[in-house]
Amino acid sequence: MRERSVKNNYKADFPLLKNSDLIYLDSAATSQKPQCVIDAVTNYYQSQNANVHRALYGLGEATTAKYEQARKHVADFINANQDEVIFTKGTTQGLNWVANGFAQSILKPGDEILISIEEHHSNLVPWQIIAKKTGAKLVYVYLTPNLEFDYDDYEAKLNSKTKIVALHHMSNVLGNILDLSKIAKLAHSFGAYLVVDGAQAAAHTEIDVQKFDCDFYAFSGHKMLGPMGIGVLFGKKNLLNQMTPVEYGGEMISEVSQQSVSFKSAPLKFEAGTQNVAGAIGLDTAINYLKQVGISNVKALDYELCKYARSRLEEIGGVSIYGEANNGIISFNLDGIHPHDVVSFLDVDKLCLRAGHHCAEPLMNYLKIPACLRASFYIYNDFSDIDTLVKSLSKIKEFFGK
Amino acid sequence: MRERSVKNNYKADFPLLKNSDLIYLDSAATSQKPQCVIDAVTNYYQSQNANVHRALYGLGEATTAKYEQARKHVADFINANQDEVIFTKGTTQGLNWVANGFAQSILKPGDEILISIEEHHSNLVPWQIIAKKTGAKLVYVYLTPNLEFDYDDYEAKLNSKTKIVALHHMSNVLGNILDLSKIAKLAHSFGAYLVVDGAQAAAHTEIDVQKFDCDFYAFSGHKMLGPMGIGVLFGKKNLLNQMTPVEYGGEMISEVSQQSVSFKSAPLKFEAGTQNVAGAIGLDTAINYLKQVGISNVKALDYELCKYARSRLEEIGGVSIYGEANNGIISFNLDGIHPHDVVSFLDVDKLCLRAGHHCAEPLMNYLKIPACLRASFYIYNDFSDIDTLVKSLSKIKEFFGK
Repeated sequence: MRERSVKNNYKADFPLLKNSDLIYLDSAATSQKPQCVIDAVTNYYQSQNANVHRALYGLGEATTAKYEQARKHVADFINANQDEVIFTKGTTQGLNWVANGFAQSILKPGDEILISIEEHHSNLVPWQIIAKKTGAKLVYVYLTPNLEFDYDDYEAKLNSKTKIVALHHMSNVLGNILDLSKIAKLAHSFGAYLVVDGAQAAAHTEIDVQKFDCDFYAFSGHKMLGPMGIGVLFGKKNLLNQMTPVEYGGEMISEVSQQSVSFKSAPLKFEAGTQNVAGAIGLDTAINYLKQVGISNVKALDYELCKYARSRLEEIGGVSIYGEANNGIISFNLDGIHPHDVVSFLDVDKLCLRAGHHCAEPLMNYLKIPACLRASFYIYNDFSDIDTLVKSLSKIKEFFGK
Repeated sequence: MRERSVKNNYKADFPLLKNSDLIYLDSAATSQKPQCVIDAVTNYYQSQNANVHRALYGLGEATTAKYEQARKHVADFINANQDEVIFTKGTTQGLNWVANGFAQSILKPGDEILISIEEHHSNLVPWQIIAKKTGAKLVYVYLTPNLEFDYDDYEAKLNSKTKIVALHHMSNVLGNILDLSKIAKLAHSFGAYLVVDGAQAAAHTEIDVQKFDCDFYAFSGHKMLGPMGIGVLFGKKNLLNQMTPVEYGGEMISEVSQQSVSFKSAPLKFEAGTQNVAGAIGLDTAINYLKQVGISNVKALDYELCKYARSRLEEIGGVSIYGEANNGIISFNLDGIHPHDVVSFLDVDKLCLRAGHHCAEPLMNYLKIPACLRASFYIYNDFSDIDTLVKSLSKIKEFFGK
């Protein structure tokens, strides 16, 4: 069996994979969780559980400190300031808040919102809705013939009416990673703000919001080894001050009378109601685990696994692969067989893969396919997983007489 | 030591309390979690973790079934239909969604929103904001001299301009539980909709949305033994069909092209992006645990503990108690001593109590106090906790020479 250049057997840290014979190739949907993250959540509920920012007793104060420490560690992880980090439910919530709480107030009829044809619905539909509400126009950047983001098309479509540029950092279908620094520089030269959907990228590549100079960056815990129900929205401080909350409730308020209210400063003004403290502490642990693995090792593994999968899929023949990126995601189809049929057969061999439009219907239409298969890898996968996949795909091809 | 009429020692099920000498009297902020709920979350991550409603492979399908089973159990718990139950982040999110996605579209300038002076900020500020956006007027129901909800004032303030009545089911400060059936009947006779903040009530009394005939009912998992980051919004089916989503993203969409979108039916149209599946499964387990305890036993314990606390506090003298309800919450002050000072002293004796405005500033102003202490009980508390509290309070009074 071929060996990975990064030799640690991370799979041993993941109980769901260690204790089953499942081959999990759907990490782009949600990652599995290492024991340390599960333990962090368990320990939280067993010995630390209290509401935060409210309690003056020791238990509550200690938990508030842990929650704020998690915020500090997230800030360090993305090179932001602590007061620029808002805890959310996940990427979708973060992007919706920027659309509602920030973009809505600056957009006027005739203004343009620039997104790409590769966007996940969560970075597409909120902009469609805000465009309709404000009279702004939703404009698309398309792809190069080899299915890369077309930087020329991007530059050509930027103009003085462009107020918002909203893009993925890494596509959930094609796996390509965008050059955010280049994109931000161009956007800013036209006075537009850059909003980034980092749902996929946070698990696979470095995030440096200062280097990127992006204005907002949203990501989720659950795709990067953390618990469900916790995410992060980064915003530049002056923009967060300008942005209005979308949810109102306890602990985000400075003062309230019967008919008027004033709010705390960011980030607290966005964190209405009881927060997912267990989630924040679990995410903190996930980030620490990822730091120990090292993002450069994650990238090296992504590259090796994708390259190997690509070459093995090409060997089978009759496989259409979409895009050329090797960042942990490969989307493909077996020619002449519907992807939904394929995954059902793969399931018999304990292979967990996604088939569908991957919440990117406009991209499917652009690629002129109804759906596709997606194998998405993470640090717990190895070459043998790909060998099993390829063997199973070959059987399916044979079964269908293709 | 006095014994509770319901003899089970529930405390043994709660690791945080069993393994520490803390006396936790802040369950109105967040409840502690029984081992079975913690185990459900752990087991989920260790053997079931997958994204739901997306995967065609066995693991994902099994998890989707568990998630929908949780929805079914929640529906049974509140006597609703399964498609009337939306999973949210918590009560605050649910109430904000009703304000934004439903109320905003029906309110016109001059219309009235009726709330009470007892509301938690999460059922107050969203209505202030929507009132400002729509030109509607926010009208308050006040209290009787013995600090009960004033049904006469409610009836007097209802009129043909009243479009929304938004009330707590159980006050987080005074602990009083409202007669929702009576309130709904009156609201509906004027064509108004009844929105209920059930954050406190869900842990302490029966919820029967059909009997209440309320139009919306929001509550959180974390106050009723469940995990953080999960909550529920009930809405009558025809109203959920009418209500627009506030967040847009994956898996709530029926079809999307570059410039248009259609949505799934409720409840899925409200559940954009990856949901807190672990949270939903943990909440399901919490509901099952509560059912085993029996809500009637919870109420019996609440009553006994409150009655005992009330009589012991009265014995000390120099204690102002707010309200007369015995539903698990007692708010009070030691005359002449600031409540913040009191809780700091109580903390030394391992007593976890909240002091402050309890996210109910208008109520504090109405009561003409800056803040108060709140002891909130749950099934893991017993009479000895109250004895310790009273002993500590007596010491504090002595220290301050009161």
